[in-house]
Amino acid sequence: MNLPAAFDAIGTELPSLDPAIADAVRARWDAKTKPLGALGDLEALAVQLAQIQGRSTPTIAEAQILVFAGDHGAARDGVSAYPQDVTWQMVMNFLAGGAAISVLARELGCGLSVVDAGVNHDFAAAPGLLDLKIAPGTASYLHQRAMSIDQCRQAIVAGHALAQRLSADCLLLGEMGIGNTASAALLMHHLSRVPLAECVGPGTGLDPAGVARKLALLEQASQRHALRGTDAGALTLLAAFGGFEIAMLVGCIISAVQARKVVVVDGFIVGAAVLVAQRLAPGIEAHLVFAHQSAEPAHHRMLGEIGARPLLQLGLRLGEGSGAALALPLLRLSLSLLANMATFDSAQVSQAS
Amino acid sequence: MNLPAAFDAIGTELPSLDPAIADAVRARWDAKTKPLGALGDLEALAVQLAQIQGRSTPTIAEAQILVFAGDHGAARDGVSAYPQDVTWQMVMNFLAGGAAISVLARELGCGLSVVDAGVNHDFAAAPGLLDLKIAPGTASYLHQRAMSIDQCRQAIVAGHALAQRLSADCLLLGEMGIGNTASAALLMHHLSRVPLAECVGPGTGLDPAGVARKLALLEQASQRHALRGTDAGALTLLAAFGGFEIAMLVGCIISAVQARKVVVVDGFIVGAAVLVAQRLAPGIEAHLVFAHQSAEPAHHRMLGEIGARPLLQLGLRLGEGSGAALALPLLRLSLSLLANMATFDSAQVSQAS
Repeated sequence: MNLPAAFDAIGTELPSLDPAIADAVRARWDAKTKPLGALGDLEALAVQLAQIQGRSTPTIAEAQILVFAGDHGAARDGVSAYPQDVTWQMVMNFLAGGAAISVLARELGCGLSVVDAGVNHDFAAAPGLLDLKIAPGTASYLHQRAMSIDQCRQAIVAGHALAQRLSADCLLLGEMGIGNTASAALLMHHLSRVPLAECVGPGTGLDPAGVARKLALLEQASQRHALRGTDAGALTLLAAFGGFEIAMLVGCIISAVQARKVVVVDGFIVGAAVLVAQRLAPGIEAHLVFAHQSAEPAHHRMLGEIGARPLLQLGLRLGEGSGAALALPLLRLSLSLLANMATFDSAQVSQAS
Repeated sequence: MNLPAAFDAIGTELPSLDPAIADAVRARWDAKTKPLGALGDLEALAVQLAQIQGRSTPTIAEAQILVFAGDHGAARDGVSAYPQDVTWQMVMNFLAGGAAISVLARELGCGLSVVDAGVNHDFAAAPGLLDLKIAPGTASYLHQRAMSIDQCRQAIVAGHALAQRLSADCLLLGEMGIGNTASAALLMHHLSRVPLAECVGPGTGLDPAGVARKLALLEQASQRHALRGTDAGALTLLAAFGGFEIAMLVGCIISAVQARKVVVVDGFIVGAAVLVAQRLAPGIEAHLVFAHQSAEPAHHRMLGEIGARPLLQLGLRLGEGSGAALALPLLRLSLSLLANMATFDSAQVSQAS
């Protein structure tokens, strides 16, 4: 495969979000037996889902959870509270059904696929595991680029192709990768110009001293690559700071939006992929559902930079797509309310005077 | 029935919330394959549900929605955007399956019962309708007490008895009654001493002029009853301002808590019933799950007065128990995660260093 050509073929045009469809759904809501706007964010959600799907009767037939997993060279330099081995161990746990996202997938009746974007482990083939490994983990951005530009493009192309061949009309996007809040913080800093100290947080659970050490390391990484204040493109930044799972998410997000799938964005790391995707496809945030605001302190600010309003605020900081999964009932229920509530006419209920 | 005696027999002692059970559940969470505390509010929720049920393996076997409906004399004096007839029309809509709460009940697999606490309409017997009517609507507090003290006690006793005979271990409590945000605002003002203007809002959808008119009417009502600044008890206030559905909710809440049922509180009106219940049974808020913060502006302040932290913030202002129903998936999923996630040991995942 000619990678640069494949990358250029992706295209970054987005489908239209038809205001007439929004108006039609609002009119449907307003005829329902409830005060105008009384279902609040659920009404806006169904309007958005309709625009995404390009029809005034939105539905979710099949929701699929995708967890993109990758390892980070910098994890061995002390940016995380956990050893790098936890990435592959958690992948095994996802597949064995014991992780939070595995439990949620069963309860919600969703498929769960784990995408090996670049885990530092040789997995045997297993149901639910998709081998799209670019390399066994990135290099450490403390010493060199996390990946080459070609690897970065390859990962984006792989994520793009993956979303195209999935039958599900709703994708819940999550990730696993020890050290990946550090990559997300670096990307956020360089893409948004928010000071690095405000992008760095405890991740899986660093104590304040650990956060200070992480910040010092990331400051060092940022200086090493000397991309701050330059007009470095999104690919350059992504290649510098990683990771493979984030790059693959970028491609998957763009492709799924192009295919008018409902894309539910999980937390801080998937949010960093959205920041990258916005550079490649400006305006893409309007096509995405943002599941939640996490406990990672910078996530609130990141959502503001993206221009996103999250559905839930539950103090989660797990990743895996768990927040996206927890938001799925709200999507399903909003669509069922829109489809199944009676109208004032049909129920013979008086309207406001 | 000797009503005062029946009322006195209710008792307002609450079950203990055992800290050892909380510790046991926290230990169960901490052994699960996730960073400590990473499931955020869902972890605290399962801890609370365990304490409510008095066992470290909490479950919800059967969730039941109860919508308490009542009419308010003051509705005919202009405190609502909707005519009083909408109360009984919406009860019919609940029973026919067309209302938001009907759709949610079906989707969530919950029973739905509508309690006629005092609707101004003669209903034919119907499946799902419980006739506990105290009277066909309250009197208008603009002219007299909304109800007598005996009616108030009767309503509380009826709500108390109802919760005792339900088999469900989880009750989702909602209400319907044109004009009942006005009663809730009056109760909030007198029970919390928050200025009346900060307790009054648009309810089902008054415009600013309508809110100003509502405030003027409620100020008039408050002056008429001259209970402000007195040590009037909760029953005196409830009798003065109504309504029957709120009084019945008070009894139901206390009884369900005493029976260690999981009680999910909906919005502003059920919140007013909680404020009353707190006077009768101090500390009851720790036994209750608060589903959401609604769009009614005073609800945020009310939750603060109660000492409650809501699960959802979706800008809802529908009532009917809709917010409680929308929170149910979070309760169920938190309990399933606690029951079914693997531990670090069982999944052979490394822990933080």
